[in-house]
Amino acid sequence: MTDGRQRVAIVGAGFGGLAAAQALSRADVDVTVIDQRNHHLFQPLLYQVATASLNTSEIAWPIRHILRNADNVTTLLATVEGIDTTARTVRIDDGSTVPYDSLILATGVRHAYFGHDQWEKFAPGLKTLEDATRIRRKLLVAFEAAELETDPDKRKALLTFVIIGAGPTGVELAGAIIELARVTLRGQFRNIVPGEARVVLIEGGKRVLANFKPELSDYTLKSLRDLGVEVILGEPVTEVDADGVTYGDKRLDAQTVIWAAGVQASPAAEWLGLEADRAGRVKVENDLTVPGHPEIFVVGDTATITMPDGKPVPGVGDAAKQGGKHAAEVIVARLAGDTAVKPFRYKHAGDLATIGKRAAVIDFGWTQLKGWVAWWAWGLAHIYFLIDIKNRLFVAMSWLWIYLSGQRSSRLITQGEAEPKTPAQAAAKD
Amino acid sequence: MTDGRQRVAIVGAGFGGLAAAQALSRADVDVTVIDQRNHHLFQPLLYQVATASLNTSEIAWPIRHILRNADNVTTLLATVEGIDTTARTVRIDDGSTVPYDSLILATGVRHAYFGHDQWEKFAPGLKTLEDATRIRRKLLVAFEAAELETDPDKRKALLTFVIIGAGPTGVELAGAIIELARVTLRGQFRNIVPGEARVVLIEGGKRVLANFKPELSDYTLKSLRDLGVEVILGEPVTEVDADGVTYGDKRLDAQTVIWAAGVQASPAAEWLGLEADRAGRVKVENDLTVPGHPEIFVVGDTATITMPDGKPVPGVGDAAKQGGKHAAEVIVARLAGDTAVKPFRYKHAGDLATIGKRAAVIDFGWTQLKGWVAWWAWGLAHIYFLIDIKNRLFVAMSWLWIYLSGQRSSRLITQGEAEPKTPAQAAAKD
Repeated sequence: MTDGRQRVAIVGAGFGGLAAAQALSRADVDVTVIDQRNHHLFQPLLYQVATASLNTSEIAWPIRHILRNADNVTTLLATVEGIDTTARTVRIDDGSTVPYDSLILATGVRHAYFGHDQWEKFAPGLKTLEDATRIRRKLLVAFEAAELETDPDKRKALLTFVIIGAGPTGVELAGAIIELARVTLRGQFRNIVPGEARVVLIEGGKRVLANFKPELSDYTLKSLRDLGVEVILGEPVTEVDADGVTYGDKRLDAQTVIWAAGVQASPAAEWLGLEADRAGRVKVENDLTVPGHPEIFVVGDTATITMPDGKPVPGVGDAAKQGGKHAAEVIVARLAGDTAVKPFRYKHAGDLATIGKRAAVIDFGWTQLKGWVAWWAWGLAHIYFLIDIKNRLFVAMSWLWIYLSGQRSSRLITQGEAEPKTPAQAAAKD
Repeated sequence: MTDGRQRVAIVGAGFGGLAAAQALSRADVDVTVIDQRNHHLFQPLLYQVATASLNTSEIAWPIRHILRNADNVTTLLATVEGIDTTARTVRIDDGSTVPYDSLILATGVRHAYFGHDQWEKFAPGLKTLEDATRIRRKLLVAFEAAELETDPDKRKALLTFVIIGAGPTGVELAGAIIELARVTLRGQFRNIVPGEARVVLIEGGKRVLANFKPELSDYTLKSLRDLGVEVILGEPVTEVDADGVTYGDKRLDAQTVIWAAGVQASPAAEWLGLEADRAGRVKVENDLTVPGHPEIFVVGDTATITMPDGKPVPGVGDAAKQGGKHAAEVIVARLAGDTAVKPFRYKHAGDLATIGKRAAVIDFGWTQLKGWVAWWAWGLAHIYFLIDIKNRLFVAMSWLWIYLSGQRSSRLITQGEAEPKTPAQAAAKD
């Protein structure tokens, strides 16, 4: 594999790792990309898989397919178990090791429960394709179980959907779920009226989309309530169990609870034996390298870094892309003998979130967009950023179809062997 | 739900149950459709999901969506646990019962291992969406593991794919897997050449597609061998384990083995306490009713019945459709006071199977088609039979895309919590 050329190992093929691999694909280096999944996931649209609008394969692509033309890149499907920073090797789960001269860690985040890990069982988060199909199954099984349920209170709990956390993911999930209930499922049940389902969005902070300009938060709040979403602000959730949630001193019975409140970085800091912040992110130098290890870069959500203006770099895909590209550029510059430290300069393109099928908000900083204009801008931007021409086409068609027909193509309840299939089995499992 | 009208319960929403429900949707009866899945599956294309050509949602639709306009039909997602033929009720897994005046059982088949159930662990069959994604995962992980494997013998075993049984499913899987290896994955690995993978089709009988005219079997055999599939005839498999298969006195090391050899009817006969044939199918009267129970119909693969010409009705979707329609018509006729026994007359449209991406064979009985003409006829027929206009469109586009680009859209390794993710985990699991 190697012919004495510089060896670059990249762990994680999300936005950051993939950007680094692509930037290095024309460089005189041997690159090894290691990921525990075989696919790159377009996370911004994951909520649409969870709410049955898109197929899993419309937002995910085999990593080695994306990198097929990069002859200097080898893709390995494996889980990293540790890093030996002295021997400069990455240990993977088949027991072998991958040597490196330069290492880029872009391992991303998982959702976190702030010390309440027992909540995960009742309130799954949304980070992977499996998370999305699990949530899709929970949502669809709840309506099926309500159709079978005769006890009015139990039926009410089955038709109550709680989303914890009103960031972009929580807002987008709430809007999609209320439309699933009121539009997609309309007229398809005989014992229940799906449109009577309650969708409750609970946020501990004072406003939705706290990272956006206040006027956009206000607009989003109003839009969600117009859609029929019940939004509760300033009430931290204090308990989540099999029967529902407790917030402040109030209790809400709900069979379906989704967690969109917090994230935790993957164990990169542990691997390196380094100091991490509360969210497990590695504190890196201003060039994204690790203190004392200029050959190790940490990019994207896995790293914590503040810009000269004192603002932290946000945990968004675009920041990960820019970080991965930066790391690749530094490695290439060093190959050319340029060892000067190059600080990472993050350019913030903007924040955006959709509110159901007709509205969105976009905060460019210098200006804001809202309403249907923003929704179309959001749609076009996301279709543009989808990697594969075929997927762009298919996603565009899926959306057009849903837009025109209100129907959703992917309302499938599927599961691994361990998973419950029918409402009764699901009930038995809880 | 009921207003004194005749109550019809239908168990199973495959081709048979769905045809019955649709035929009864305009009749003066209350229909309850019970299925343990929320989706109707277009099984003839399941092998294309297993080989990453189609998405799960392109060949499956929510049952209640298909029946949304049938106001007299209630759909329940539940598993049947028993039938009380005296009280005339169906017991489902939430403990409740569904009463009926007429009952239609269309519960289909699972793959069977002829008393070697321990083989299932090593050689999964292909009947459900979960089966298909499991096989897809096994196929894709094998190539990933081979890319990591350094031992040449182990790598050889990882790149050896065995299909047991050369009926239509076995033939179609073999053709699709060899094309996956030689076309789709070409140039995407650095340590292996996917095209060197061996695809071995083992059949105990003397020819492939035994139900087809001999000339079509010969053509299919030649076509498969031209594609690069190794076809072994007249050699029953005597052992399947974690390392491969034994047939006759020969041993073949293979990490991936797929079972396409036999089926077993679901437990309808047990529920009814009735005599069943070796494959578990209920022996029904010539009008598809159960001996002594004219109000109970068994249709499709769940029943065994011979035509006046002595030929058995084949276990194909079209036979199930005709059976379901027949049962519905008998029920409607009885409502009109016509209680005369109406024998089921099966009209055999034909048998067909594809051989890779360029050829197919169709046996209409009165004439035969083969080659690319048959392939196009097969494609158009299947697109036509796909239920939902959107799916017709998307499947047509997916095929066109694969046909032109050789790329496949659905090469995703996903799993339930219990499932292995990386090659190492998969190895550890076996």
